Amino acid sequence: MLLYNTQISGNCYKVRLLLAHLGLECELHEVDAVDRTGMPKDVLDYSDRTELLEALNPALRIPTVVLDDGRPLAESNAILHYFAEGTPFLPEDAFERAKVLQWLFFEQSSHAPYIAGAYLLVAHWHGPTGPLLDAEIGARHMRGYTALQQMEQHLATRRFLEGNQYTIADIALYAYTHLAPQGGFDLSGYPATRAWLDRVAAQPGYIPITS
Amino acid sequence: MLLYNTQISGNCYKVRLLLAHLGLECELHEVDAVDRTGMPKDVLDYSDRTELLEALNPALRIPTVVLDDGRPLAESNAILHYFAEGTPFLPEDAFERAKVLQWLFFEQSSHAPYIAGAYLLVAHWHGPTGPLLDAEIGARHMRGYTALQQMEQHLATRRFLEGNQYTIADIALYAYTHLAPQGGFDLSGYPATRAWLDRVAAQPGYIPITS
Repeated sequence: MLLYNTQISGNCYKVRLLLAHLGLECELHEVDAVDRTGMPKDVLDYSDRTELLEALNPALRIPTVVLDDGRPLAESNAILHYFAEGTPFLPEDAFERAKVLQWLFFEQSSHAPYIAGAYLLVAHWHGPTGPLLDAEIGARHMRGYTALQQMEQHLATRRFLEGNQYTIADIALYAYTHLAPQGGFDLSGYPATRAWLDRVAAQPGYIPITS
Repeated sequence: MLLYNTQISGNCYKVRLLLAHLGLECELHEVDAVDRTGMPKDVLDYSDRTELLEALNPALRIPTVVLDDGRPLAESNAILHYFAEGTPFLPEDAFERAKVLQWLFFEQSSHAPYIAGAYLLVAHWHGPTGPLLDAEIGARHMRGYTALQQMEQHLATRRFLEGNQYTIADIALYAYTHLAPQGGFDLSGYPATRAWLDRVAAQPGYIPITS
C-alpha cells in the first residue's frame, strides 16, 4: 500500500497511527507541505498536486492511499473507517458506529478548520506576517476553543470519545488536538482533554507524529 | 423519530430527503436559522441553541435527530450513513462504501464551507452589508468553484458519484450543489453537474427542499 503523506499533517498522521496499531505496512510517498509561496498546502490546494494526484483524488488532497490492487482512497477519515472495519477500532453496534462517524464529521466541520488551521498558520507559515495573519489566527483560535470546550465537556465523564473503547474517533480527534499547543492554544484549562491525550499516547502500538 | 430542523439548511434537507426515499416518518422540531444579530446559524454557533441541544449534541448544531428510544445522533452525514446502512442508498461492497464516505467527507471539508457558506451569506444574510461581506462571499465563491470543478470532472463520465447507483454520496452533495445558484454560483459551465442534479431530482420519492 502507498500513502501520499506529509509528515507535519495531522490528517496524514491519523492514517499512519491507525496502520501502526493494526501492524499494517505502507510505503510513504512524501509530498511537500509548503509550496514556494509559503502557504501551507493543507490550507489551500495547489496546482503542483494536480499532476501527482489528479488521477487518484479529485480533491487533490493528502492523505491519499493507493491499495495494493491500485485502487485509490482519499479523505483521512474515510481511510480510517475503511481500515478500522472489522477491527476493535470501530464498534460492531450500528448506533455506536454512527456515533463514531458523528465525531469524524465533527472533526472535519467544527475542529480541523480552526485547530489544524491555527497550527499550520502558527507553526508552519512561511509567508508574510502582520495584522491580517494575526486576525486570521485569532479567528481560528476563537472557534477552535469552542470545539475544545465541547470535547472537554464530553470527556469529563468518559475515558474515550465513544463506546468506552479506543476507536478511530479518538485517533481522528487526537491528531490535531495534540498539536493544538503548537498552534497557540493553551490546554491548561482542559484537564479531561489532557488526560485523554495521555490515554491515547499510552495505547499499544502508538507512534508519535514525528516517527 | 424527532428531527431538529431548519428548513433552509441543506444539511437538514439531506436528512429529510433520505427519510422520504426510505418512507420513514419524522417529527420536525423547527429551529430558527437566523438569530437576532442576523447571522445565519449554520455559519456560527449560538448560545440560544445550548438549552435546546446541549444534552443531545455537544456541537449544538442542526440537524440533530432523536431516535424513538431517545438516543440522539448528529452531523448530517453521520445521520445519512446510519439510516442508509442495509438499503440501496449505501453499497454493500466495503471499498465502494469507503468511496461514498470519501465523498461525504469531501462535502464537509471542501464543498459545504464554500458553497453552503456563500448560499447562506447571499440568500439568508440579514446583517450589515458592505465590502467586508462582499470579500467574504468572493473568497467562498473562489473555493466553491474549485469544488464544483472537481465534481464536474468526475461526473463527466458517470451517472452518479459512486458505484453507478444513486447513494447518500449523491444526496449529501446534491443538497448544497442544487442551492449553489441561490448563492451566486453560475452553473452554466457545468453541464455534467446540471444533468446529475436533474437525475437526482427524478429519483422516486424525491422531495424538494421547500417541502
